[in-house]
Amino acid sequence: MLRLRGRDGNRLLKVDGATRAIARVLYERVAAAPIVSPHGHVPVAWLASDEPFRDPVDLLVRHDHYVTRLLHAAGVDMEAFARAADRDPRAAWRTFADHWHLFAGTASGYWLEDALAEVLEVGEPLTSESADRVYDAVAARLAEPAFRPRALFRRFGIEALATTDDPLDDLAAHASLNWTELGGRVLPTFRPDRYLDPDADGFASRVRRLVESAGEAMTFAGYLAALEERRRHFIDHGAVSADHGGEEPYTADLEPADAERLFRLAVDGTADAAQQREFRGHMLLQMARMSVEDGLVMTLHTGVLRNHSTAALERFGPNSGHDIPLRTDFVRGLRPLLERFGLVKDFHLVLFTVDETTYSREIAPLAGFYPSVFIGAPWWFLDAPDAMERFRSAVTETAGFYRGSGFVDDTRAFLSIPVRHDAARRTDAGFLARLVAEGRVSMPQAEQLIDHLVCEQPRQVFKL
Amino acid sequence: MLRLRGRDGNRLLKVDGATRAIARVLYERVAAAPIVSPHGHVPVAWLASDEPFRDPVDLLVRHDHYVTRLLHAAGVDMEAFARAADRDPRAAWRTFADHWHLFAGTASGYWLEDALAEVLEVGEPLTSESADRVYDAVAARLAEPAFRPRALFRRFGIEALATTDDPLDDLAAHASLNWTELGGRVLPTFRPDRYLDPDADGFASRVRRLVESAGEAMTFAGYLAALEERRRHFIDHGAVSADHGGEEPYTADLEPADAERLFRLAVDGTADAAQQREFRGHMLLQMARMSVEDGLVMTLHTGVLRNHSTAALERFGPNSGHDIPLRTDFVRGLRPLLERFGLVKDFHLVLFTVDETTYSREIAPLAGFYPSVFIGAPWWFLDAPDAMERFRSAVTETAGFYRGSGFVDDTRAFLSIPVRHDAARRTDAGFLARLVAEGRVSMPQAEQLIDHLVCEQPRQVFKL
Amino acid sequence: MLRLRGRDGNRLLKVDGATRAIARVLYERVAAAPIVSPHGHVPVAWLASDEPFRDPVDLLVRHDHYVTRLLHAAGVDMEAFARAADRDPRAAWRTFADHWHLFAGTASGYWLEDALAEVLEVGEPLTSESADRVYDAVAARLAEPAFRPRALFRRFGIEALATTDDPLDDLAAHASLNWTELGGRVLPTFRPDRYLDPDADGFASRVRRLVESAGEAMTFAGYLAALEERRRHFIDHGAVSADHGGEEPYTADLEPADAERLFRLAVDGTADAAQQREFRGHMLLQMARMSVEDGLVMTLHTGVLRNHSTAALERFGPNSGHDIPLRTDFVRGLRPLLERFGLVKDFHLVLFTVDETTYSREIAPLAGFYPSVFIGAPWWFLDAPDAMERFRSAVTETAGFYRGSGFVDDTRAFLSIPVRHDAARRTDAGFLARLVAEGRVSMPQAEQLIDHLVCEQPRQVFKL
Repeated sequence: MLRLRGRDGNRLLKVDGATRAIARVLYERVAAAPIVSPHGHVPVAWLASDEPFRDPVDLLVRHDHYVTRLLHAAGVDMEAFARAADRDPRAAWRTFADHWHLFAGTASGYWLEDALAEVLEVGEPLTSESADRVYDAVAARLAEPAFRPRALFRRFGIEALATTDDPLDDLAAHASLNWTELGGRVLPTFRPDRYLDPDADGFASRVRRLVESAGEAMTFAGYLAALEERRRHFIDHGAVSADHGGEEPYTADLEPADAERLFRLAVDGTADAAQQREFRGHMLLQMARMSVEDGLVMTLHTGVLRNHSTAALERFGPNSGHDIPLRTDFVRGLRPLLERFGLVKDFHLVLFTVDETTYSREIAPLAGFYPSVFIGAPWWFLDAPDAMERFRSAVTETAGFYRGSGFVDDTRAFLSIPVRHDAARRTDAGFLARLVAEGRVSMPQAEQLIDHLVCEQPRQVFKL
Repeated sequence: MLRLRGRDGNRLLKVDGATRAIARVLYERVAAAPIVSPHGHVPVAWLASDEPFRDPVDLLVRHDHYVTRLLHAAGVDMEAFARAADRDPRAAWRTFADHWHLFAGTASGYWLEDALAEVLEVGEPLTSESADRVYDAVAARLAEPAFRPRALFRRFGIEALATTDDPLDDLAAHASLNWTELGGRVLPTFRPDRYLDPDADGFASRVRRLVESAGEAMTFAGYLAALEERRRHFIDHGAVSADHGGEEPYTADLEPADAERLFRLAVDGTADAAQQREFRGHMLLQMARMSVEDGLVMTLHTGVLRNHSTAALERFGPNSGHDIPLRTDFVRGLRPLLERFGLVKDFHLVLFTVDETTYSREIAPLAGFYPSVFIGAPWWFLDAPDAMERFRSAVTETAGFYRGSGFVDDTRAFLSIPVRHDAARRTDAGFLARLVAEGRVSMPQAEQLIDHLVCEQPRQVFKL
Repeated sequence: MLRLRGRDGNRLLKVDGATRAIARVLYERVAAAPIVSPHGHVPVAWLASDEPFRDPVDLLVRHDHYVTRLLHAAGVDMEAFARAADRDPRAAWRTFADHWHLFAGTASGYWLEDALAEVLEVGEPLTSESADRVYDAVAARLAEPAFRPRALFRRFGIEALATTDDPLDDLAAHASLNWTELGGRVLPTFRPDRYLDPDADGFASRVRRLVESAGEAMTFAGYLAALEERRRHFIDHGAVSADHGGEEPYTADLEPADAERLFRLAVDGTADAAQQREFRGHMLLQMARMSVEDGLVMTLHTGVLRNHSTAALERFGPNSGHDIPLRTDFVRGLRPLLERFGLVKDFHLVLFTVDETTYSREIAPLAGFYPSVFIGAPWWFLDAPDAMERFRSAVTETAGFYRGSGFVDDTRAFLSIPVRHDAARRTDAGFLARLVAEGRVSMPQAEQLIDHLVCEQPRQVFKL
């Protein structure tokens, strides 16, 4: 992958001398290794059209709700900001620069700083005073052919990049891509949330379209068959996983007649909250059943209350920065699913959490027993250096290094991809270096581990 | 503020050489900065009367439930101890000295040690053997004019100190204080818990007195008007915030007729547990509404089961060391309040927690979006060096440094005020130093941050 | 105790130079101190019969569900493995060796590595290639008289070792042991779970046997009397504690008539889930009442969902690696018990948890007030170096060092006992060294603390 210098080269690599030296050796082994990115949100259209990125604000600020939420919290008028971003991105960039100090110490600040300095090679630090010059320098870069999406893809050294897609997507954009030219694969991911949740806006009509697309009848059996058909379509286009969100990892194993009945109520819009929950829980279990049958890796990104502020949802739409984590219970919630499929060979279930308390209490113990369960890399708010360190500390003593998913960037911020993978490699190098310095793993073990973690582990878990 | 030497000067400042040197530079910038103390429990009468502190036990031990609870846990007969404290404080002090080893490594031990060595300048370490000599040395200090409350206030370098007061307090003691002479302001804080909780002893009669004091009718509207009137009284005496406790941060948005009906049941003493909960939840929301209207910062100190032991409550009264933290849910609990007021300009809501799991999962994400929400400094059991470090690590990567309240000492232990602020400054210097050493913030950024954190942040959040 | 070299001697002892030097001094003070092991699962029959251990697989792998669960997670066919362990242990050992890399960084890996290198003095690292040689070396050791159970007990330097036993055990094996010859005591522990939980398989017939054994009538009073009688039998054989498991630390204080009624339903098998829960909760409270009366220390190991996978339970039996921690509430759950007995002199209640969130939120605050409550050492998944460090950091600032249980190895893996105690001593030395380096405790205090923690604290808490 693109080699990041990390300023003095020691960024994130532990501070005491002896450990830093070990960390440095471990990091150097993998600093340039290919990027395996089995889950993320880069729009495939960017790669399919290969148009230059529009402008610095559109690329780096506006669509990144990690960033906009902190501007919002600081009192920036986000409707005015969005208008400026449309009509006068330089003005929006100045507003961003005026608030750049807010990002000190945050993960977003770290990604942006490295994206500017290392990926875009714009060396001048961002301040209110330098805002225009930095804007011009970034804009100039984006106009260069070397900074178009496909060129960056090649330069980043991406071996595989998964997108996240609607089940009814025809995947034509994916099919149009030339993997040889890109130097890596671009794979769709089946993400059916809105087809599984009776509480989602437009559920019934969406399900109807799904069922019709597959020429099935509007029954529970037809609905399942249509989902299976779409999964086959995804698999035919290279998909290796199906991804699932939701407020909780709740699963339910229903009798067919009960499932059929709840399906009816759901599409009629008459299911109450408890029935909707049972239906969602049963559909997660059905998704696991399909994964067992068709081999798609099942990933769960649950435990988040979406759109906490109704007013903000109405003003800014979904994904505007107020999805808030919830306390999560994987142990009881996933039990019905694991009772059915937890011991099935080659079934892979990757659990992501934004409730750190579940790492040592639930996820590591589950992954330390079920061959199917893998520990998802730190997700979202937890995808940051200190949180990654806490993650490794919380799971390793119970589950070791081989039950994790490998690093997952989960991002739409294309320029941050090498930055994020670099940070993960540095953090893992630092963690392993401490174990070496404390006499807990030997240096040869640590070398073997970091080699394995960076590429081989995600390849195996995601069947790449 | 009073400059603490911290023995070898490096106390709490990280242990590896390079980081310690950075931390030292950062700490030195703010070691003498003024104390901004926007929430605490110092009795205003101490400052109004300016009498010498009674004796070492009364000042340092007896009323500090952080301290007495560990004596109690060690089997000390606390009724006998209280009698000794009344009649023969030297004997009580000997008992305390005999148990001083129990405080090694605790926050209380740290505060007391520094209060003795740095504030009272009593250098001899406390042991069973030295108990009498230390007692005499402290007692001698307390007899000096320089150790009376107002002289200490000046010596501590307090810019602003908030007390916590009953809504019906006339605030005459506050009004009597000469801020110029003190060198800083003393502000009351509106704390209406017992007027909002139908389950509190004497609720109905207390509400009646409140309503009558304002010349209002005994209706829900009259009750609200009386609360508003008392808040104005507090604001007229300099108050900048209203503080709220309770077992949970539960809020409810009721229709006026329902609120009126619950108010009736509450004052009649016929509300059941669920109705009491709804009423409390609605009153928290009403308090937010009043804060929106009158500008008082709203602070929440919730998530504690008060008086866990009924026998101890009967024997020792409230605040006797058995208030125990509970698992807390801010995300769902505060949603009704934030739906109504979360986006209102200049509304400030500061969330304190004793459930560390909520830092990264709930509070930092909420404060990272809502302009009104601020992250309260580590509270109570968590106001200690390691816990403060965990706090910074848990919230910073999500919310940065500008969404916090600044340090809040929340104490009645007057002599510990400079000690606590000093420890917070050292801990923040250490945290920032690590980020510098790890290449995550630059030294100029870190300098700007620590300057901001110590004074400017609490001034802004508490509208000082 | 057996002196472990820990390779370069600095294992687990912090990595920065100054702190490591302090840690080293502290560790050396206690490296050879006697082992006090007040709770564990070593079969007393091993010591009573003193037969050589069967083979390396039987001793080190097969019965250790910490180890087998990671093999299972890696896809090893555990039925085939068990057959191999029976018939051809060398083949099973080879399978184990092939998966040895999975244990890098885990607690189990650490224990096994030290058990091989330090206890069995087999220096060659385990790999697929060395598997046979290591197997032979271990097998040769096990054939030596010095590696029989009693000789190891003496060599380990065990002052006291508690086993865990069924209430109807006659304890003849315990009575047969010669403590002088062993150089230490072997004490039974009363573990009545299956006699207290109406949901346990065979509850009614087991209770019937219990009641009959004591010549009591099949009433609630007879049942309580029989339990009391068995406790006396245990006390007569040296027992100092009674241990209790279960999914949650729920307690209930029932009226005698209600308890009698639930007892009837429980033995008739007609109690529903809620009634079973109340019964269990009341029996925990009755156990506390008996502890108050007979002096047995009460230990709680709760918060675990046993046998998460029904299929695995059927295939491999209980304790096969899929007991998974649950979120736990000690504050409300234990309140009825503590209301009754929390302040009673000489009642000792030790709380173990696998939910780390309860350390700072619940357990340390409870132990910091109730003289009866002690903080159990890190248990199970948390008995590992990083988790032990988190534990000390989470509880010390609130409760100090004197409210803990002292280290508890809780193991059946006999050879790991000195290894585990050594790791705990090293970790505590490292934690204390950091406090010294940060100026929070003095070196003389730290020396006094580590001396106290290693032997005196468990002796006091467990009344040894």
